[in-house]
Amino acid sequence: MRAAAGFQGLIRHGNLLAALPRAAEQEQFDPLVESQGIRIERIVSTGQASPAGFWYDQPDDEFVVLLAGAAVLRFEGGDQRFDLKPGDWLEIPAHVRHRVDWTQADPPTVWLAVHRARRA
Amino acid sequence: MRAAAGFQGLIRHGNLLAALPRAAEQEQFDPLVESQGIRIERIVSTGQASPAGFWYDQPDDEFVVLLAGAAVLRFEGGDQRFDLKPGDWLEIPAHVRHRVDWTQADPPTVWLAVHRARRA
Repeated sequence: MRAAAGFQGLIRHGNLLAALPRAAEQEQFDPLVESQGIRIERIVSTGQASPAGFWYDQPDDEFVVLLAGAAVLRFEGGDQRFDLKPGDWLEIPAHVRHRVDWTQADPPTVWLAVHRARRA
Repeated sequence: MRAAAGFQGLIRHGNLLAALPRAAEQEQFDPLVESQGIRIERIVSTGQASPAGFWYDQPDDEFVVLLAGAAVLRFEGGDQRFDLKPGDWLEIPAHVRHRVDWTQADPPTVWLAVHRARRA
């Protein structure tokens, strides 16, 4: 086991709700952890949506939670939309096609996503 | 790829800030995702702290973020304490010994933790 004297260097930390852009042309992706097939990232949306007709079709399983703001997610082939408010989470299995119809611009919309590569 | 008709059955979802206990004798652990060496869980603390002299010494890497409430974390061998407020996250590598000195009871303290087993 590791002693934690000097743990400041071992322990990476931050705040997901700090340093938010007020507006941006593109969504902002901040990787927090990336190792062994896992990627944990903060996403800040300021009004962006998926392009018309675009569907995400991801090779990874994704757990996503909305931390601030608001958004609308939609899944292909279904009429149901998910109106997301803070605290709402979804587990989106790999290759389940989905899109972001809308995100709140101001205050910004903050997501935390955990992408996991499927192991062979 | 999977069609999303009937995706309601595929897409597990919920709200991390809903259905909070107002008080409890024990911390509440709600597993959200568990597969392939990953465990994502919500933890609700209502005033609990680690017992005197107790240190967590975990075999897994843990990403943790405080979503609501407040808490104080401490690491062995360091004088520094982490006073956590909503949005604060830490990445705690396996076997870095730490303890929870205090959690806010009311309103409850809500954490999201992502535990990842190290691959051989």
